Amino acid sequence: VSGAIYNRRVEFAETDAAGMVHFSMFFRYMEEAEHAVWRGAGMDIFASRETHSWPRIAADFDFKAPLRFQDAFVVRTEIGAVTRSTIRWAHVLTRGDTVIGTGTVTAVYVAKARDGSIKSTEIPGEIISKLRAALAS
Amino acid sequence: VSGAIYNRRVEFAETDAAGMVHFSMFFRYMEEAEHAVWRGAGMDIFASRETHSWPRIAADFDFKAPLRFQDAFVVRTEIGAVTRSTIRWAHVLTRGDTVIGTGTVTAVYVAKARDGSIKSTEIPGEIISKLRAALAS
Amino acid sequence: VSGAIYNRRVEFAETDAAGMVHFSMFFRYMEEAEHAVWRGAGMDIFASRETHSWPRIAADFDFKAPLRFQDAFVVRTEIGAVTRSTIRWAHVLTRGDTVIGTGTVTAVYVAKARDGSIKSTEIPGEIISKLRAALAS
Amino acid sequence: VSGAIYNRRVEFAETDAAGMVHFSMFFRYMEEAEHAVWRGAGMDIFASRETHSWPRIAADFDFKAPLRFQDAFVVRTEIGAVTRSTIRWAHVLTRGDTVIGTGTVTAVYVAKARDGSIKSTEIPGEIISKLRAALAS
Repeated sequence: VSGAIYNRRVEFAETDAAGMVHFSMFFRYMEEAEHAVWRGAGMDIFASRETHSWPRIAADFDFKAPLRFQDAFVVRTEIGAVTRSTIRWAHVLTRGDTVIGTGTVTAVYVAKARDGSIKSTEIPGEIISKLRAALAS
Repeated sequence: VSGAIYNRRVEFAETDAAGMVHFSMFFRYMEEAEHAVWRGAGMDIFASRETHSWPRIAADFDFKAPLRFQDAFVVRTEIGAVTRSTIRWAHVLTRGDTVIGTGTVTAVYVAKARDGSIKSTEIPGEIISKLRAALAS
Repeated sequence: VSGAIYNRRVEFAETDAAGMVHFSMFFRYMEEAEHAVWRGAGMDIFASRETHSWPRIAADFDFKAPLRFQDAFVVRTEIGAVTRSTIRWAHVLTRGDTVIGTGTVTAVYVAKARDGSIKSTEIPGEIISKLRAALAS
Repeated sequence: VSGAIYNRRVEFAETDAAGMVHFSMFFRYMEEAEHAVWRGAGMDIFASRETHSWPRIAADFDFKAPLRFQDAFVVRTEIGAVTRSTIRWAHVLTRGDTVIGTGTVTAVYVAKARDGSIKSTEIPGEIISKLRAALAS
């Protein structure tokens, strides 16, 4: 099995009155796992924030089974697709042998102009190769 | 233009260090708008929680433009698709003439057994007709 | 009764598995009410963010009764104390005749230096008088 | 130095447009640390939720220095005071040698009646001794 592994436990504030993790939290879990991949690759996604950033342009999640307070779970993260200026991250959440859900988050690499406007720009090859190396290790 | 209208303003805690609304918040905005439709139809989605509930089985969002602190925006909500036991809600967020993004949330109607297990079940026709009436008014 | 009134309804994502609003949310409700006072006074607390800001230095809340999903409640906000560089906001939350809780948030006015450091600075008298006028109206 | 240690890293969704962790998050960090103490003591604060619970009745925090995205920090937790039916938890947050802030959360032990009403009740001595043992180890 390839991909990076991110371990997490459900905190109380993440649950809702239905007794389960609120569905919006899964998008935060996916982002946490992605940022852990960046750190694992020796990079900081936010380091060049004055000139570049990675806004999200699409996200989806399919919910298969609930998570509850204090459940320990795993996010396994891979790169789903890469274009000139986007990375589509693919995530699978599991609790033991149970698949909790699967989702993707697509981020675009943008350069910031002095007037505050942003424009999609080519992702440096070194970034992609470092991320791929982190996911393969 | 059909569909229900939900008016909202961005609160400070909903922004992130990139200066924009965090992408996970849009899933909360969509849910807030859906719950407002239920109330507008004279129903409470949580009233029969002892016997039934509406867990989310899928959600997606496409991000077109950012929202920032104190931006006033609108969520326009329609029913995208209905099956025997699911409703797919379709939402469009706008700030003035700018489309902020579009997304869907699919919820399944389930009955709870005494042992805590849940099973998808047929949505009463009256619920669908009340929701449609609220969206058409 | 003096003070500004902020009306709010509990959203589902704000509840937790105990079936009530999570206690951390009350700090967000207090901040929302404060920011509404700023807007009511014709000011934007975030407008001069390049040179000044209002970090919070203390916050407290006493919880008297729970709030649940879809409860409508009111935050009544007053200025509790003002020093050269701080404002202590005092809030009372009620649902109908029931007091939900009371709390305070103290914010300090700081100027930002070019090196990113911040230093508390005197609050312009005009800001205080505009806020007081909004609370008295 | 006594007390339990909880290690945490700041996630992106926890920051706000001022570039720092939103002040409401510190109340969540304190709760996470408390729940870790319960687990460290071999107990689950939520296990007897059908008959008992631990609602929060007071919380406060003094903010000394900001936390930013990806900062690693520590919460050191002690029991500040115990009465017949309450525990006051005392927390200190630090990032390296920098004190980020200090706060307390007071929880009351309540029994739930069949009609849903709650009443404060005596904390079993065994719970206190297990918590104290976990904090001393």
